[in-house]
Amino acid sequence: MSPKRIAIDAMGGEGGVQVTVPASTAALSEYSNLELILLGDESLIRPLLHAASKDVLSRLTIHHTDSVITDTDKPTMVLRGDKRSSMYLAAQLVQQGQVSAMVSAGNTGALIMAGRHLLKTLPGIHKPALVATIPGVSSATYLLDVGANPDCSGQQLFEFAVMGAVLAESLGGQSPRVGLLNIGSEQHKGTEEVQVAAELLEQCSAINYVGFIEAGDLFQGAAEVVVCDGFVGNVTIKASAGVANVVSSFVAEHSKQGPLGWLGNYFVGSAMSKLRRQINPQRLNGASLLGLQGSIVKSHGNATIEGFGYAIKQAIIEVELNIPHLIAEKVAAIMSDNDAAD
Amino acid sequence: MSPKRIAIDAMGGEGGVQVTVPASTAALSEYSNLELILLGDESLIRPLLHAASKDVLSRLTIHHTDSVITDTDKPTMVLRGDKRSSMYLAAQLVQQGQVSAMVSAGNTGALIMAGRHLLKTLPGIHKPALVATIPGVSSATYLLDVGANPDCSGQQLFEFAVMGAVLAESLGGQSPRVGLLNIGSEQHKGTEEVQVAAELLEQCSAINYVGFIEAGDLFQGAAEVVVCDGFVGNVTIKASAGVANVVSSFVAEHSKQGPLGWLGNYFVGSAMSKLRRQINPQRLNGASLLGLQGSIVKSHGNATIEGFGYAIKQAIIEVELNIPHLIAEKVAAIMSDNDAAD
Repeated sequence: MSPKRIAIDAMGGEGGVQVTVPASTAALSEYSNLELILLGDESLIRPLLHAASKDVLSRLTIHHTDSVITDTDKPTMVLRGDKRSSMYLAAQLVQQGQVSAMVSAGNTGALIMAGRHLLKTLPGIHKPALVATIPGVSSATYLLDVGANPDCSGQQLFEFAVMGAVLAESLGGQSPRVGLLNIGSEQHKGTEEVQVAAELLEQCSAINYVGFIEAGDLFQGAAEVVVCDGFVGNVTIKASAGVANVVSSFVAEHSKQGPLGWLGNYFVGSAMSKLRRQINPQRLNGASLLGLQGSIVKSHGNATIEGFGYAIKQAIIEVELNIPHLIAEKVAAIMSDNDAAD
Repeated sequence: MSPKRIAIDAMGGEGGVQVTVPASTAALSEYSNLELILLGDESLIRPLLHAASKDVLSRLTIHHTDSVITDTDKPTMVLRGDKRSSMYLAAQLVQQGQVSAMVSAGNTGALIMAGRHLLKTLPGIHKPALVATIPGVSSATYLLDVGANPDCSGQQLFEFAVMGAVLAESLGGQSPRVGLLNIGSEQHKGTEEVQVAAELLEQCSAINYVGFIEAGDLFQGAAEVVVCDGFVGNVTIKASAGVANVVSSFVAEHSKQGPLGWLGNYFVGSAMSKLRRQINPQRLNGASLLGLQGSIVKSHGNATIEGFGYAIKQAIIEVELNIPHLIAEKVAAIMSDNDAAD
């Protein structure tokens, strides 16, 4: 198998090189045909490699740059000035075909902007979309878009459905159920954009469209892929995380009270740590920006070494399966079906 | 004090008269200057009044109708045909000034439609908005719109902020902090509508505007009033309820396991029932449709007698405080400020 080459924005995220470099060497140890190019400050990266094996080091390259886009920078910053930021250079390597994917824990808006600017969208795709994996009672659900496009047309939502279906099918192996996030299950509900998307999906035999999904059913496994605009998707994942945090702290706090509180805490603590494992955000880290000619994986800004490792794995899987190619194929097949039907 | 007259759609909601009638007689017992007009099937309502006191019965009137809008009916149904549904007739009583408010647990879309059609919006308000009370760690937050307007202009969002501020101030007594729900706290984030609303709020000295609020901070008491369009608001409250349900059942289930499981269950059960009291949806039942000349309170369709009672109380409070009048006053003050500034 040909080696997989992936670029790592070593400077992005709250943990910076302390997170990205150990996660990178761990991934190189695990995947023997992986090659990584680390973009960032060599003087910070180099000291973190002292324990790495010769084999790992032989597949790791550092491209030095001391320019970084921070989380508080305006996203447009990434495209201005000398264009030497670790994030920009990583995206440029994808553009030039030197790597098949890049991973960054940096500024989301800047990453989307760099991706859009440097990488073309796939034929038939107007805009890329960010996919989040949300934990469910039984299986995971892919929700997209979760922040790349605050406003979306019905056609764009349809394209997101196609991209999500390709990802879910490639990873899950079955014909995934695809739903549209809406404020009711009745046919007349929602915005005009959602109505247009529903019509397009109903007419598309290549997608297993199951209709409208209400937000309350997202975590009950009502569909493997759920589609919405980036504003709604972003609010959905943040509100959900907010509630989970409030409930966790409430249960933890109140189970401590009373004379036998330590015992209650023991039992609740056990249930809560099981829950934390189940919905471990580190394990689900790695949101793909789908729809571009090349793979971009966004890690959460506060990812741990383990979490950033999952984001690298997500990139490896996308390269292995050649997700951009599969999306392009599916879109072309749907378009030729439509032409034949005309 | 003059009597408060409120119309009750006795037929709406999953529980129908079994819920609305006992809740109505309980409210009449509690509030001696309350008068209720119950709209619905007299042959179903009458048998449920056998235990009511003479005093309660003297302040309860039944307007008989056997026509009902069901939850599966299209909302437009309420305005079609003979217009004799319990919901339509209740809204008509508000329109005619025979009552100051109405309460219904029926079809939300139909209720909004009846309200919009029969009641005029207040001067300066383009569209009414549905307000939900969401439980927070310390205090409650009013979120609007949660479903009346899937699409909103920046001006509408601004009007929602004014209405929410009036409600929060009337109920809470302080100058409430008002935020806009957005996908980031940075100034450039969000849709054009949100950007326009932010500009209007920044220029308005009568509103204590605190900027963008992310969905994760909604439950941390970041503001007393949070504004968004009806699609986003609806998804937010449904996703939040969905997560709370999943976490509750997970903790309940997993704390039972193991040899001393019954003990764990005891402790977790205690924490969970405290949590359920804290976020008791019945206690927070009663979403007001603000912005109309008259008060309409929507009860949750699956409200209990206790829950429907809280919705009636919400209507009583709105009548007592004369919320529509206060909103009209605030809007007029803001508009004259703007004229003076021009």
